[in-house]
Amino acid sequence: MHDEQRARARDLLQQHGVDRALFAHPNSITWLTGYAPFVEMGMSPFEAGPALVWYEGGHFTLIASEVQADAAQVYEDVADGTLITYEGYAVDHPIRAVEAMTGALRNVLRESRGRGLVGVEMDGVTAGQFHTLNLALNQPQILPVDGWLKPLRMVKTAEEIVKLRRSFELADVGYGVARAACKPGAREIDVWGALDGAIQTEAGRRIPVSYDCVVGYRHNNIGGLPLDYALRPGDSLIVDLAAVHQGYWSDGCRTFYATEPTPDQIKRHHFIRDALEYAIALIKPGVKANDVDAQVRAFLARGGYAVYPHHTGHGVGVSGHEEPRIVPYNETVLEAGMVILLEPGTYIPGETGCRLEDGLLITADGVEILSSYPASI
Amino acid sequence: MHDEQRARARDLLQQHGVDRALFAHPNSITWLTGYAPFVEMGMSPFEAGPALVWYEGGHFTLIASEVQADAAQVYEDVADGTLITYEGYAVDHPIRAVEAMTGALRNVLRESRGRGLVGVEMDGVTAGQFHTLNLALNQPQILPVDGWLKPLRMVKTAEEIVKLRRSFELADVGYGVARAACKPGAREIDVWGALDGAIQTEAGRRIPVSYDCVVGYRHNNIGGLPLDYALRPGDSLIVDLAAVHQGYWSDGCRTFYATEPTPDQIKRHHFIRDALEYAIALIKPGVKANDVDAQVRAFLARGGYAVYPHHTGHGVGVSGHEEPRIVPYNETVLEAGMVILLEPGTYIPGETGCRLEDGLLITADGVEILSSYPASI
Repeated sequence: MHDEQRARARDLLQQHGVDRALFAHPNSITWLTGYAPFVEMGMSPFEAGPALVWYEGGHFTLIASEVQADAAQVYEDVADGTLITYEGYAVDHPIRAVEAMTGALRNVLRESRGRGLVGVEMDGVTAGQFHTLNLALNQPQILPVDGWLKPLRMVKTAEEIVKLRRSFELADVGYGVARAACKPGAREIDVWGALDGAIQTEAGRRIPVSYDCVVGYRHNNIGGLPLDYALRPGDSLIVDLAAVHQGYWSDGCRTFYATEPTPDQIKRHHFIRDALEYAIALIKPGVKANDVDAQVRAFLARGGYAVYPHHTGHGVGVSGHEEPRIVPYNETVLEAGMVILLEPGTYIPGETGCRLEDGLLITADGVEILSSYPASI
Repeated sequence: MHDEQRARARDLLQQHGVDRALFAHPNSITWLTGYAPFVEMGMSPFEAGPALVWYEGGHFTLIASEVQADAAQVYEDVADGTLITYEGYAVDHPIRAVEAMTGALRNVLRESRGRGLVGVEMDGVTAGQFHTLNLALNQPQILPVDGWLKPLRMVKTAEEIVKLRRSFELADVGYGVARAACKPGAREIDVWGALDGAIQTEAGRRIPVSYDCVVGYRHNNIGGLPLDYALRPGDSLIVDLAAVHQGYWSDGCRTFYATEPTPDQIKRHHFIRDALEYAIALIKPGVKANDVDAQVRAFLARGGYAVYPHHTGHGVGVSGHEEPRIVPYNETVLEAGMVILLEPGTYIPGETGCRLEDGLLITADGVEILSSYPASI
């Protein structure tokens, strides 16, 4: 699993003369190994923080707690990776997850025969783990490698596209349920409870689901977690959904109405749908991200609508928001194999709002739309 | 909010002559400030990891990303705490959450006038943050303080007990829904989708909900996340629920049956219910945790049932499993104000299992049971 990702990382490290590196950011771990830890409850007392990956001489060792049992599956048929687990839970002595993780890391490092630089994700690894590294390798020369993998993550592998397709399918299930639940009297959290349960049921297992479910009369009606605001006749509801399948995030947005939309809401919705179609038509390899951003903003301004204060879009993968960002400063040239979101919207604070967002796989000559739920009213 | 917790931490640090300390473990942050970050999607690209607390001269500064807006509420009426936020999201320049967090930390440290030791939670703070600390304070003498707050967390404050009561109430809502959904044909994840949605709806907002939902015919039928195993006539279903309200975890367990339970299941369930009642009757201030553990295990052995391989119980608070652990090695003496779980169970792998678990607030002369859903069949 994820052989192509490791090959890309190996090439990059070799180009920089880095023969050893410690990866610690959760996104790096998932991208390098395919291991997507259960995150929904925060850190477990039976884990010493997120898993780590130690790279040495082309080989990737994943270090995870025994309670992260599903980690074992990712390296089953892999030649260039090994899984090492440490004791997380015990009943006959105190929980010593941190000590056990430290011991596992020390054992892995003890076999290190390299000299020279050690790459480290300094903003993921803990000070305790870094101390262990320094001791075990006798104060090696450290090269921070934070962010190094991000550009490599932009163009998706075939394996990643399979995962992403499924995560977009799962989110689409949510829109159908949300639309049916969007009625006067229902609260944002009621709509959410229905759609979240339906996505889990469709997935056949628990998966992270998130983002916005906000009624138009909230002052900040661009986004936010669902609360107990009740829908009234005439209210709009923005439902922005990400479902995370095997660590891969979808994203998208639809706007629903508690009753028949008003003439203004209809006009607004049609306009934003046109803006989304306009934006999608701009996307093909060779186009610059900031040009797309500028053109979509100009489309809204020409139409006389308030231009959204947020990004026009962004990439998605092992994180919900990554490169290429479709924003004013970003001169990144779009390439085939990137998966991006486009999300024009317009908002009247405290009254109503409309945002529509589709996921796109950039192809040789345009795009394939990954979101299948209709963007119409 | 959480003044009493900070007073306890201040006393401890002063006793050890520590005038400055950096707290970084998520449990420490929640316990010190009352701030309970949204965890359900893992780390956000708009945050530089979990929030931090810098302690200096009796004052507690919480450092959080602007997207963690709810952090602002916890220090509203507090004399000994300040909130500092850093930019997490931006549209006109690249996301620089780590740089912004580093800058905020550096600014806070720049005002430091202390000398001597600096306490650091080495297993929570990142190597990058630790590097910033070292630079800003010119290589101070570091004292690891990992785990220091854990003993202080054992006896709950009045404020914490209010939060815990609510989290237990929320879990109880889940049991009612799970019992109704436990029917032949339903899968574990179907039961879960129903109960999770109901708990969110009752809470009026998204809250973390977790633990086990496992059918008896799973080989490991002690626990596990719900999957797509379908219930058949005669199946048992263990539903072990934690709902996290304002950062405070409940816990509990009930066992349901897809159809009328068999005579053996009835006998087993009644026996485990008796074991739970027996265990509860043992609890009062002055009792040692390992004595409780030994007596409950002996009760099961005397009854001729397989003794559970897990803990007999544990404390709960800002984490789902904390001191006092009710386990064989733990000589901790129970005190009034502790909140613990007791959870006897017996399992036949791949066939059936029964576990019942109640939450208890230890009082001056016994306990108050925090779980209200009936433990009967």
